[in-house]
Amino acid sequence: MTYEVYVNVLPLKGLLDPQGKTVHQGLNKIGLSQVADVRVGKRIVMHIDANSEEEAKSIAEDACKKVLVNPVMEGYEIEVAQNA
Amino acid sequence: MTYEVYVNVLPLKGLLDPQGKTVHQGLNKIGLSQVADVRVGKRIVMHIDANSEEEAKSIAEDACKKVLVNPVMEGYEIEVAQNA
Repeated sequence: MTYEVYVNVLPLKGLLDPQGKTVHQGLNKIGLSQVADVRVGKRIVMHIDANSEEEAKSIAEDACKKVLVNPVMEGYEIEVAQNA
Repeated sequence: MTYEVYVNVLPLKGLLDPQGKTVHQGLNKIGLSQVADVRVGKRIVMHIDANSEEEAKSIAEDACKKVLVNPVMEGYEIEVAQNA
C-alpha cells in the first residue's frame, strides 16, 4: 500500500534562524507588523510503499536520520496520512 | 492574542521539483527503495498578534501573497493553531 507521509523539519528552538529573521523583517517592512516571530523550515511530502502505517513511519524516520535532517541544527516531526 | 500559524508551501503538482527528485534519488541510492515520490517545499511557523483566528489567518494569507509564495510555481495551505 502507498502512504502519503509528511515530514516537517524546523530549526531547533534557541538556534539562530537567519532565513526566518529575514522573512520577519521583510514582512514588518511591508506593514505586516502583527507578525511577531517567523521560523522557516522544510516541508517534505513522500509517497512510501509499506504494509502498515507503522512501517511507513519507520521508513520515513530512517530517511530523516540518514538524509533529510541535520540533528545538530534541526528537529523534525512525521505525520502519516491515509494511503495516497 | 498571539496565534501560532503554520504555512506549508509546496511546488505545484505537475511542475518539476528538482530538489525533490534529488532527495528521491539519494534515498533510493542508500537502499530506501520503498520511497516512491518526494516533493520538497517550505514550512513556515509564524506568531501573529490578532483578535481572532480569522484575523490571524487573513494576515498569514496576506504574507503568503506578498512575500512567502510564488504563485506561478507554488501552492500553499495555512493552519492556525491555538494561541501560542
